[in-house]
Amino acid sequence: MKAIAVAHANIALVKYWGKRDEELILPEAASLSITLDLLRTTTSVELGAREDSFELDGRSEDPARARAVLDAAGIREKARIVSRNAFPTGAGLASSASGFAALAVAACAAAGLRRTPQELSALARRGSGSAARSVAGGWAVWEDESARQLFPPEHWDLRFVVAICAQTPKETSSRDGMRHSRETSPYHAAFIGQCRRDLPRALQMLAARDLRGLGELAERNALLMHADALAADPPLLYWEPATIGCLRALHGSRREGTEAWATIDAGPHLVAICAAADAKRVETTLRAVSGVKDVLVCAPAGGARVLP
Amino acid sequence: MKAIAVAHANIALVKYWGKRDEELILPEAASLSITLDLLRTTTSVELGAREDSFELDGRSEDPARARAVLDAAGIREKARIVSRNAFPTGAGLASSASGFAALAVAACAAAGLRRTPQELSALARRGSGSAARSVAGGWAVWEDESARQLFPPEHWDLRFVVAICAQTPKETSSRDGMRHSRETSPYHAAFIGQCRRDLPRALQMLAARDLRGLGELAERNALLMHADALAADPPLLYWEPATIGCLRALHGSRREGTEAWATIDAGPHLVAICAAADAKRVETTLRAVSGVKDVLVCAPAGGARVLP
Repeated sequence: MKAIAVAHANIALVKYWGKRDEELILPEAASLSITLDLLRTTTSVELGAREDSFELDGRSEDPARARAVLDAAGIREKARIVSRNAFPTGAGLASSASGFAALAVAACAAAGLRRTPQELSALARRGSGSAARSVAGGWAVWEDESARQLFPPEHWDLRFVVAICAQTPKETSSRDGMRHSRETSPYHAAFIGQCRRDLPRALQMLAARDLRGLGELAERNALLMHADALAADPPLLYWEPATIGCLRALHGSRREGTEAWATIDAGPHLVAICAAADAKRVETTLRAVSGVKDVLVCAPAGGARVLP
Repeated sequence: MKAIAVAHANIALVKYWGKRDEELILPEAASLSITLDLLRTTTSVELGAREDSFELDGRSEDPARARAVLDAAGIREKARIVSRNAFPTGAGLASSASGFAALAVAACAAAGLRRTPQELSALARRGSGSAARSVAGGWAVWEDESARQLFPPEHWDLRFVVAICAQTPKETSSRDGMRHSRETSPYHAAFIGQCRRDLPRALQMLAARDLRGLGELAERNALLMHADALAADPPLLYWEPATIGCLRALHGSRREGTEAWATIDAGPHLVAICAAADAKRVETTLRAVSGVKDVLVCAPAGGARVLP
């Protein structure tokens, strides 16, 4: 009646930005992501409680979205859910992906439900679209109802250097931001078209372990997503001064021969993609940028799993 | 055989970003601008020299583009051209607009050529597209071969608060940047479409002196231009950390009731549009932003003119 699961947040190299179905949370275009080891959420689900409760990092939260996932799984019993992030919460590091992935896996285990990885991924998706990719883990593609892992984390020894560029929560959630972009940005259709062209190229580069190719593609895909949001009416500006500082610092590093490229989710933080051998140098570069609060050096991680 | 002219740089509220004819410098979409009093260039042209020479702020420069303007005017005599900017040169403040406007007007005066304002505007355009608007001055629209003044500077007592956000010259010129955007950005066609929708609305708001309407439109139009450039391949990033700092500072000011909106040309500097009564407060706000080097409070100015 109780189970504990662990899952990792992920960063998309071909972004998910816009739903073709708001109700079912189905994306307009397929996305590619990698889970990050340090961005880890641990969630316990205990069934048979008197009422639903959801505790996140020691604070009580509204259990409504968690209940929607339980309902979708066919779990009618009330649940006591306790979730803990091993990384800064509320800093805009996409903890909803790892959180809903761990929740879906823990809830099904607690209820004794046998679910395939695809079914678990589809279930997590009902809480947060990108959670579908965190269930799959590793290098994952999400296209329709569930994400699938294309390559395990061991496929490529990359590092993802996360520069925390603000401590305040962002003004506009990803959910609201992507809907607003889809409804008002004159660039949105072209962004979706670009994602459809980017994905097959990204998969080729991933298979071939072509860092420069994938890095350039990921950086441009991220800038296009932010440009789509900037073109919304009214505009969505997710960046802080430090975000630009990090972008320029990486451009400078590349001119000096250190191969690192940026991706940025719907928030101010920048994630630099580089070879493991360059991670320390990239970390030092980003720590020196004015306004950067902290830097985390992450390696690829696997999917969501039940703890024994 | 010698004449001196003065002209002012301008800032566009509906941007010019993309040529339909690279040779003739004709824009894809019409733009709206205002000349700024403090951004002033004074240029003297003396005909009958032994060879062309061009001195800008005391430095000798290549006279090739100036010669193209003289040729277009039918002036075959060699010219000694001396130009001086009353504002920071090489800081990315669009001195080519005021420079070529003053050059065209001074050269025709020196040669004793009688030219209509339209003809002078078209001539300056051959040096730099936005120079066509600086010849017209005031609130000017440039659509085809020349710009025309729609309202004189006295029409509206606004201020344009220029925050200098970097001291180094930008990496990519406007000329190269707009060509690169047109050729590689999947958002470019949508940007041009937006400009065509924005201009008639902007002219209505200008006629009605609707500051909030014009401010919101101008800020969004500028962000769309930068988003178009960001989406180019490889991306064009004109912003510095201070640019984002200024954008966020203006958003904060608006929440507190000070009505000021941003526009940004193809460079890092931000220009805040506000009522004259608010200029001091906006100046103080922008001076406090980390990375801002200087702030200039400009009023609307007129067109290019020959000095007596």
